[in-house]
Parts: sequence; C-alpha cells; structure tokens
Amino acid sequence: MSPEATDEDVAAVVARVEGVGGRANVSKGLERTVIGLVGDITSFHHLNLRTLRGVADVHRISDPFKLVNRQHHPERSTVWVGRPGRQVPVGPGTFTLVAGPCAVETAAQTLEAARMARSAGATLLRGGAFKPRTSPYAFAGLGVPALRILADVGEATGLPVVTEVVDVRDVDVVAEHADMLQVGTRHMSDVGLLQAVGDAGLPVLLERGATATVEEWLMAAEHVAQRGNLDIVLCEGGIRTFESATRRTLDLSAVPVVQACSHLPVVVDPSHAVGRKELVVPLSRAAVAVGADGLVVDVHPDPETALCDGPQALVDTELRELAQAVRRFPPLVGRVPATPTRRDP
Amino acid sequence: MSPEATDEDVAAVVARVEGVGGRANVSKGLERTVIGLVGDITSFHHLNLRTLRGVADVHRISDPFKLVNRQHHPERSTVWVGRPGRQVPVGPGTFTLVAGPCAVETAAQTLEAARMARSAGATLLRGGAFKPRTSPYAFAGLGVPALRILADVGEATGLPVVTEVVDVRDVDVVAEHADMLQVGTRHMSDVGLLQAVGDAGLPVLLERGATATVEEWLMAAEHVAQRGNLDIVLCEGGIRTFESATRRTLDLSAVPVVQACSHLPVVVDPSHAVGRKELVVPLSRAAVAVGADGLVVDVHPDPETALCDGPQALVDTELRELAQAVRRFPPLVGRVPATPTRRDP
Amino acid sequence: MSPEATDEDVAAVVARVEGVGGRANVSKGLERTVIGLVGDITSFHHLNLRTLRGVADVHRISDPFKLVNRQHHPERSTVWVGRPGRQVPVGPGTFTLVAGPCAVETAAQTLEAARMARSAGATLLRGGAFKPRTSPYAFAGLGVPALRILADVGEATGLPVVTEVVDVRDVDVVAEHADMLQVGTRHMSDVGLLQAVGDAGLPVLLERGATATVEEWLMAAEHVAQRGNLDIVLCEGGIRTFESATRRTLDLSAVPVVQACSHLPVVVDPSHAVGRKELVVPLSRAAVAVGADGLVVDVHPDPETALCDGPQALVDTELRELAQAVRRFPPLVGRVPATPTRRDP
Amino acid sequence: MSPEATDEDVAAVVARVEGVGGRANVSKGLERTVIGLVGDITSFHHLNLRTLRGVADVHRISDPFKLVNRQHHPERSTVWVGRPGRQVPVGPGTFTLVAGPCAVETAAQTLEAARMARSAGATLLRGGAFKPRTSPYAFAGLGVPALRILADVGEATGLPVVTEVVDVRDVDVVAEHADMLQVGTRHMSDVGLLQAVGDAGLPVLLERGATATVEEWLMAAEHVAQRGNLDIVLCEGGIRTFESATRRTLDLSAVPVVQACSHLPVVVDPSHAVGRKELVVPLSRAAVAVGADGLVVDVHPDPETALCDGPQALVDTELRELAQAVRRFPPLVGRVPATPTRRDP
Repeated sequence: MSPEATDEDVAAVVARVEGVGGRANVSKGLERTVIGLVGDITSFHHLNLRTLRGVADVHRISDPFKLVNRQHHPERSTVWVGRPGRQVPVGPGTFTLVAGPCAVETAAQTLEAARMARSAGATLLRGGAFKPRTSPYAFAGLGVPALRILADVGEATGLPVVTEVVDVRDVDVVAEHADMLQVGTRHMSDVGLLQAVGDAGLPVLLERGATATVEEWLMAAEHVAQRGNLDIVLCEGGIRTFESATRRTLDLSAVPVVQACSHLPVVVDPSHAVGRKELVVPLSRAAVAVGADGLVVDVHPDPETALCDGPQALVDTELRELAQAVRRFPPLVGRVPATPTRRDP
Repeated sequence: MSPEATDEDVAAVVARVEGVGGRANVSKGLERTVIGLVGDITSFHHLNLRTLRGVADVHRISDPFKLVNRQHHPERSTVWVGRPGRQVPVGPGTFTLVAGPCAVETAAQTLEAARMARSAGATLLRGGAFKPRTSPYAFAGLGVPALRILADVGEATGLPVVTEVVDVRDVDVVAEHADMLQVGTRHMSDVGLLQAVGDAGLPVLLERGATATVEEWLMAAEHVAQRGNLDIVLCEGGIRTFESATRRTLDLSAVPVVQACSHLPVVVDPSHAVGRKELVVPLSRAAVAVGADGLVVDVHPDPETALCDGPQALVDTELRELAQAVRRFPPLVGRVPATPTRRDP
Repeated sequence: MSPEATDEDVAAVVARVEGVGGRANVSKGLERTVIGLVGDITSFHHLNLRTLRGVADVHRISDPFKLVNRQHHPERSTVWVGRPGRQVPVGPGTFTLVAGPCAVETAAQTLEAARMARSAGATLLRGGAFKPRTSPYAFAGLGVPALRILADVGEATGLPVVTEVVDVRDVDVVAEHADMLQVGTRHMSDVGLLQAVGDAGLPVLLERGATATVEEWLMAAEHVAQRGNLDIVLCEGGIRTFESATRRTLDLSAVPVVQACSHLPVVVDPSHAVGRKELVVPLSRAAVAVGADGLVVDVHPDPETALCDGPQALVDTELRELAQAVRRFPPLVGRVPATPTRRDP
Repeated sequence: MSPEATDEDVAAVVARVEGVGGRANVSKGLERTVIGLVGDITSFHHLNLRTLRGVADVHRISDPFKLVNRQHHPERSTVWVGRPGRQVPVGPGTFTLVAGPCAVETAAQTLEAARMARSAGATLLRGGAFKPRTSPYAFAGLGVPALRILADVGEATGLPVVTEVVDVRDVDVVAEHADMLQVGTRHMSDVGLLQAVGDAGLPVLLERGATATVEEWLMAAEHVAQRGNLDIVLCEGGIRTFESATRRTLDLSAVPVVQACSHLPVVVDPSHAVGRKELVVPLSRAAVAVGADGLVVDVHPDPETALCDGPQALVDTELRELAQAVRRFPPLVGRVPATPTRRDP
C-alpha cells in the first residue's frame, strides 16, 4: 500500500481478496502496510487490485504457470518423437541433435541435407516447408509439396520429421506429414496456434520469442499444456538486444533457468540465433556444456545457392566439427546420444 | 570484401550480380575492395552473397519496402474509416482520437465507455472482443457476442468501430461487424494474418510489435499492401527494453521517423505502452506534439471492476484532461480534430 | 520462501532480521510462506537473505533512494543556476531552454552559437570542453582553453554556463569556470565523480546513463545528494535499445515517472538521444508537452564543419521552429519561460 | 546519396573527401548514387559527411579499431600476468581460472577464499578493494587496507593479484599492490581511466560495459592500446536486456566474435553476469566450451555473511563442480590449464 493509504483502503483490499475465497495477511510497517495474499492464484486473476485506492504496487510471488512447473513434477520430462516402435527421446540423460535444411527446396537437396545431418549424429530431421519472412519479396517456402518431400526423406533416412507450422489453418496438413510440430519465434505468443498444436496430438517444439522473457515462454507452453498436451520441447533461439554482431543474442543462461523451474526439456538453436556459420559450432559446444537436452542446427549441401539463411548453414569442416562436438561433449555432462528406441506401451 | 579477397572472389560476386540482371561497381581501396550493387532490389533477394568466398559483409542501402515508401509517394496518405457518407479521416492535417474499453464486457459497459470516449472527442470506437493474453487463466474476451455489442454501440453512438483480430480464422466474422481491423503487437509479424486482413477490404490499424524495428514494422505493412490494400494506419505502442517502470517504452521518435520514410498515417497508443493511467495523459500530449496523426486510448466507466487492463483506463479527471489536450494541442501543430465527413465518390 | 522451506528456515530469516533491529511478519500460505520485513531499509542492506536456506526470492517494496524521494518532500524542487542576483530557475512552473554547441571549437563559433541559443529563448549556455568519445581518433575537446572561452562567452551574453566534467581530476578547474556541472551519460554510475561534483558547491545536471533504469538514475542522484548537494537537475537523454533508426531511444515516459517519485527537476536532451536534427524539433515539442522542466539542445552556426555531432545541431529553419515551440507550448502545460531572476537571500 | 541528390551534391562530397587526402569512387544507380571512400580511416573522422546536402546515410565498412585488430596481427596474443620469473599466461592454448572474493572483507576471509580458489584450479586471485555500488548505502569496499590484504594473500598463496580500479586517482596505489588492473563494467567507457591504466605498466582486465556493443568494447581497448599497452585481456560479463531472470544476459557469442576480429584474449565472468550461484557452474562449462581463454569466478568461504554478492559466490558442491569442469573441458577444446611459468627475457 502507498504510505498515504488509510485503514479503509486496507480493509477494501482485504474484502476483495476474501470475496474470491482468498486470505489476506496484513503487515503494518513504519511507512507502509504490506498485504500478503494466500490462496489459489488462478482465482486472483480478476482482482484488479492495482486500481484500488491506496494500492502502490502488486508483486506476484508464485509462478503463474502450473502444468509445466517443476514444483509439482520434480522429475524432468522426456518427450518422445516419432512413430511407436521407433521413437527418439528428448530429455535428461540423452542429447538429441536435430538438423536439416532451413528451407526445403528440392527433394534432392533435402535428401542430401538429411544424409549430412544423419552423418553428423542427428536423429531428428528439421526442415522448413512454410517460412515466415520479414519481406514479402523473400522466398516463403514451397508449402505442402515441401511437406511431402520431408515425409519421403524422413522415411528414406529413418529420421522422424520436425517442421514449423506458421498458420493455424495449416496445422492439420502439417500434422499429417510430420512427427513433431514446431512453433517458431514469431508465433510463440499466438494463442490460437498454440491451442491448435496442443490439440493436434503430436509433440511440439516451442521456440522462445525473440522478445519473450523465460516466464512468458513458459506461459506459452502452458497454453499448449492446457489442451492436454505435455509433450513440449522448449527451444532457446536468442533474444533481441542492442548488440548487432549477431542476429539475436543467444541466451544460454535460459537453459539452466528453465530446467530449474520447469520439467520440460529444453534445446538450443544456435543457427538462427547468430546467423553466421563460423559461430554455430562454438555455440553448439557451449549449448551441450551448459546442459541443453539437444541442439537444432541448419545444414545445407550447397549454402551458396540456398534460398534461405545460407550463411548459417553448416557444411564440410564445420559439419565435421559439429559431429565431433556432439560425440565428445555430452558424456562430460552425463548424457548419451539420443537414439531411436522401441518402447513398450 | 575481406582484405584477403582475391580478384577471382571479386569476379565471382560480379558474375552473380550480373546473372540476375544487376550491375556491380567495383571500388578498389588500400585495404579492401567495395562492390556497389545497382538494379532492382527485389531481384537481389536470393543472391546469397554472404556465403561467397571473400565477402566480408553485405550492407543494404535502399529501403526494402516499396509500396508504403514515401519516396515514390511523397504526399502523406489519409485513411478513411467508416461507411460511405460518414467516414473519419486519419492522416495529415487532422487529429483522430480512437477510444474505448480495452475489453468489451457487457453492452452497458461498452455503451457507457463509448459515450465517455465521444465526450472526450473520440470519433472512432475501439474495443476488444478477442484478447490475446499471456496467461491461459486470464480473461480472453467475449468473442463474437462482443462483436455484436460493438456493432450495436457503434450504431447507437455514430462511432465507426475498430477491433482487433487475433486469429486468421476470425477475419471474416470480425470484418462483418467492424469498420477497421486492428492487428495487435503480438501479431505484427504473422504473415498469414497480415495477408488475410489485407484481403478483407477494410482499413487496417497495424500496431508495432514490441520487438520490431521501424523497418520491420513497415515490412509488415508492405505485406498488407501487397494484397492491394493501402488503407493502413500504423500504431506505435511501445517497444520492449530493460526499463521496467513502464510496461513497454513508448518510442515517440518513431512517429517522425516513420513519417519521413513512409506515406502512411501513424498514431500512438500510450495506454498499452505504459499500463498506468497517470502516465497516459502526459504521453498523449506528447504524442500530439510530436506530430502523431491520432491517439488510441483506453477508457472504462469503472476501472476497478475491469476484466482487462483496468489500471490504464481513463475515467473522471484524467479523461477530462485528455479531452482538453486533444482540443488544445492539435492546432499548435497545424491540425484540426478529425470529424465524420461525407466524401464524394 | 520456497515451498520446501522448513520452520527452521523461516526462524533463521526472522532471527537475522531481528538481529539488525527489524521486524519480520510471517504469512503462511498454502504453498509458500511469505515474510514481510519492517524497519529502516538502510539497516537491511547487509542482510544477504538470498543466501539463506529456503529463501526463494527477495522483493524490495520501498524505494531505495531517500534524499531525492518525493515521499518526504512532496513539493517539487526548483534548482537555481548562475551567480547570486542573476539566477535562472529550473523547476515546476517554468520552462528552461539550455542550448549551445556540442563542442567548443573557437571563441567565434561559441559566441555565435550562444547568440543563436539566446535568440531561440535559451537562458542557459551549454557547451563541451571535454568530450568523451568512443574512438581515440575522434576530437576530444579543447579542454581548459574551452572552459575559458565558455566563461567569456557566458559573460558576454549574460548566460550562465553548463559544461560537462568527464574526469574527477578536472572538477575543480571546471567548477572555476562554470555555473553548473554536467555529469554525462557515460559517467552516471561513476561514484567518485558523483561525489566530487556533489562536493563542488555548484548545481549538477545529471544525465541518465544509456543503460540505466529510472531507479538507478535516482540512486546516482542520491550519491550526489549524500554530499549535501540537492541542487540536482536530472536529464533524460535516451536509453539503448534494439532500434537503430535513432542513436538511442528517447524515453519520454521517464519524465512523469521521475516527477511522481522524486522532487528533483527533470529536463530532456533530444539532440544526443536521436542524433538527427530533423527529429530534434518534434521531440522538443513532445518534451514540453509531456511536462519536462526544460530542454537541452545542440546549436551550431555551421553544422557542416562541426567537429562533433554536426548532424544533430540546429541552425536556420529548425532553430526558428524550436524558438516557436518553446514560446507556444509551455503555457499550455502551465509554465512560463524561465528568466534570470534576482532572488532575495 | 538520397534519390534527390544533384550532381553538385555528389561533387561536394567528392571534394571534401579529396580535401583530406582520400579518394571517392562514385557509383551511379537507377535510384541512387553510392560513393565509396578509400583512404586512411582516421583522416575521415572529421569529414562530417552526414551534414552535407544530398547525403542520405553514411556506412562504415572498415573496423574503427586498429591496434587491437586481428587483421594486421593474425596471431592471437597471450598476456602474461605476475612478476618476472613466475607469470601466468592468458591466451590461446591455455585456460586460466581467475577466482576470489567479490569483496575483500578481512585477511582471514581473503586467505581462505584464495585457498579455495587455488584448490579449484585458479592461478590468478581476484578480489575487490573498491566496490562501485548502485546505492550509497551499500558496502563500498575497504579501499587501501584491502589492497594490502590482497598483496599479502597473493604472496602467501603464490597467486598474482587482479583487482579493480574505479577511480583514476587510485591507479597508482592499486598498481603498487596488484599484478593486473581491472576496469569494471561501469567504467568501460571512462576514457580518463582507460588512459591511466594504459600508462600504469601493468596488464589490464577490461570488462565489457553492460550496454556496450562488441565494437565499443574493442574501442575501449584501443584507448588503452593507444598508450602503448597491448597487455589487455577482455572480459565478457553480460549485457543488459529485458530478461530479468538473470542480472544481465551473458553473451557467450561475443567470445568467438571478438576472437575473429581482435588478437586480444577474452575471458568470461559468469558470476556477475547472472548473480545466482546455481547458474555459475553450467555457464562456466559453456564458457570453456565456446572457446574462452579463461574464467573469472567469485568464491567466498561463507556466502551467507558476505558483504557483497553473496548469492553468486561458489562454495562446497558448486566449487568442486567448477574444479572438475576446468580440469575436464579445456582439453576438449585444445587447451591446457594455465600455470605459472618462468619465461626467458
């Protein structure tokens, strides 16, 4: 309460809290009175205390997310991706490399990229069919034909397919062709899309928005979880800052921060965060070392002709270095490479 | 080019530029060679020069947006909102106040808020039917019933209706009830939604994303314009920064920056930017003074019971101060209040 | 406290608070216990509660600044600048224009700039003798000779002189020549410099650091105030954000935010914030309208030859527009132009 | 040039460039003319081209830093810290752990912290004598007595001493007691201090400012280098962003970015960046993995009673984990632990 708040002001706050079934503990100080609320936080959402006379500020103490909170689910979760009988885990104890072309251009390019990915240790294939672009004049992806290419290449290489859905109307067609639905950084706060992928019955790869706090990112996951889908893998892909040496600033601290407060797995996408291939390998090493449950990396057989994000795609030397990193570093943090597994029902 | 680039590297760049019909001017310096590209910028989108050997960096000199650029359209545009015969202008020379409740709760609350808005000088009514919220546990709007209330209240008060569309599947139903479609800060980079509102045949109020540069905001407008719809009003609503005293940081510099490079009108939403009603009036004055073409402000007859953003809604004293500000300040910057007008076809 | 905290953990916190003379009110909730601290906040600085077992987080409720807080000093302060008998006020009720060349280059240039400033309505002269520059290869100011030029020009034009001190060893020599000491954006958190200007016996113009929150800015003022000097004028000059259309993002919301929690006057420097002269006039108008107590603006008789920040210096048309703005806008917000005044002791 | 620029405008730019001995290559395009400048970049600092008529924008292509640039010094540098005959390297091929108490409180606490540091693998001791604090009511360090303690403890443990200098007037006394001078994040852009430490004849640990781009950080190093001192170790300690889960956002991408463009060593300080001890170990691992040349970490024998930054100080479990990380991870990136070395003159 502000220093000028009267006893009536305090009583009004207490009455409002009790009106929704909560309890309000009043602590009178020398200068201010502090009121502590006790009760179910979801019942406090419409209290609107900040508009009451004498209220100086409202601080939330409890986390606003519940289903994805680690508090009531202390064991970290593993999300399984792929068809029954041949699923790839993402979670504690393993390390999962997800790789592929930023955009699907042709069947040949996608197959070649998938082979590169697999040879580097990837067990999930990521490729873009729909590309959300800043410019209406840039390549926007092949759309549905790309989904078919991805499904075929996934079949041919044995790699389950992860691909982004950028429009709520495409959720069904994407879900028919893919094994995991990605919600990209531009769409993290699109509630309609979050609900639709939550309903689609597939695991979700949820990228952090470039301007989202960790808490907002977990609230986006909560939207998916509310639909009954807890197969969510979080993906840190950088936040927007004043620094322009990299496209975004990769926030590796977010990995242990998330793991401390949520049971969901969290992976890192250094390719899109920094946009320059010579930085991708060092940051991939760092991502393993910081404790990420996996990596998402762009590869392309011929970056010079790539229609999308060529400068960040790995090939040749960098790809070999990546392969080495994902072999050598995970054991040092107690992880084994994630491999396809037959699970008993 | 990097200092180590060879003549062959330079020739490769020149060849690639000429391959898409462009011209490449080579300037050899003491340490570096600089290559200037001349030609149609849209043909350069897939050049992918950054991946070529010897290329150190690529700087774009021309603006990437065309249809919304002021260069080929030096006169600033006016957007007209409302039914033929009774339209409200937003543009140079006038000042337009858009006001209403953050969320439509009941018919009575909306009607009362619309009357407050009109008495303060508003000639457009803004109210929320669909509310995109961070938390799945918060009030998400009444949806279609709210659209009907808005249409009725707009009819009753003579105020054309502006309302946000948050899901591409709702564009048609919103367009049936509203006079202008708002794309909110969370959806500014949702290309599918931008295209759909571009197709809907109504003027668009396009809010700046909280993490969008001015250039990205204009590129979002370009997506709408590409669909043949140039009736776009830009709305500055604050960007995300490290400062937490306000919800976002209102970037008033963006108003003259936009007006210098685009012909589109630009208005300011101080309510959502700062989230505290005592700051809304001073920032509204500042928005008029900086040269904005209008204001978007939350009002509510009873902020204490508001289901959404009560702390920022104006009522009583602040509302009277706002009314005074929009009467007194516009004439000092050469503007008259925007009023409904019968235009000849 | 975290949900797992034991009664012993709670007791340990209570004991530590009581050990420094404070009181700890314990509120037990369903999931967590919240402990409210009551007492003198300065005694709580070394409590180090966050390291105690079971403590989840620590929120400060009271402001950490005291001397510059408005709570115990509800009337807003006026700071007087200049020699006794001819002092210019900065504070509520008046509007003060501070103008001059970014850097003093010659006596003639400074005199001409001072005349331009005065003709535009300035009653304080600001000019740079020591220029802190990012590059060691850029012009760093004339130093002491510039101080003499400033003092002479101030004498000749009747304008008290404001100039920046960038090195604690220069405080004395600057104080001999100037009427007000400026601490610039790069030095806002330099405690030694803050203390030295606090001791110098002159009013202080304290610019906000480009990365400082409002609270940190007020804490810097508190460092000055601790030395017994409350003649502090705060200057908002923009914060660093991801937006690159302007040098920094001018945070005009900070003006009413500061005025609500501190009694100190606050002025705005749009020139350095945006770095482009065509934006300076609109933002100057906005600064008056938002309620600033004054403006700091760069002027230069020949910006094309300026050794520092030429692109932002006003001349000709823009200068006339500024003059008009500072005549017309202040009366609308209840202010009169600040003029030199003889005050009785 | 802007699209409206005339031939005279172009000629004026060319003339001005040639006037300082440069060359200007003119490329005429369809819409715009682009002028490329060739010559010594330091001669271009006062050109002030942006103020000339017809100039739309100025882009710098070359790096503004020279002495610290890797271009003319392709081999990465090693900086040696400590007295002749017993010096610790910081640079490529080795990995250096710098550790100690955030603030020196007593001789016993410092000695104990130094032993903890050494047992964890540290070969340099870092401790604070002068603490720059946001609040004037917080512990500001013991000052000169702390320097004596540090020197004694360094002697007793065989660890060269690194300590921060926060005031230019203290450079001499700090240099008498320490082996390396630290310039902290708040002082990175304090030119007077940079010059003074450049003159002091000791190696310098230069922390990145919380709001500094990589380029500005390297320009700060250039200020030191200009005084003839190239024994500079850069220290990444986080940048300020909107994310509040950590004190600052550790920007690990900056490590490979710096190493690509500068020959100076770069180390990482996770303790001050994140402020929470449970995040320090994972981020330390990540720092080694990303290729940093060393780490700076806070340790304290009794964090609960620490006068400064207790929550981030390592002890017990975390300290053992750190020790293990700096033993196991450096070999995977081709590094050996840095040990004191006798070098031939």
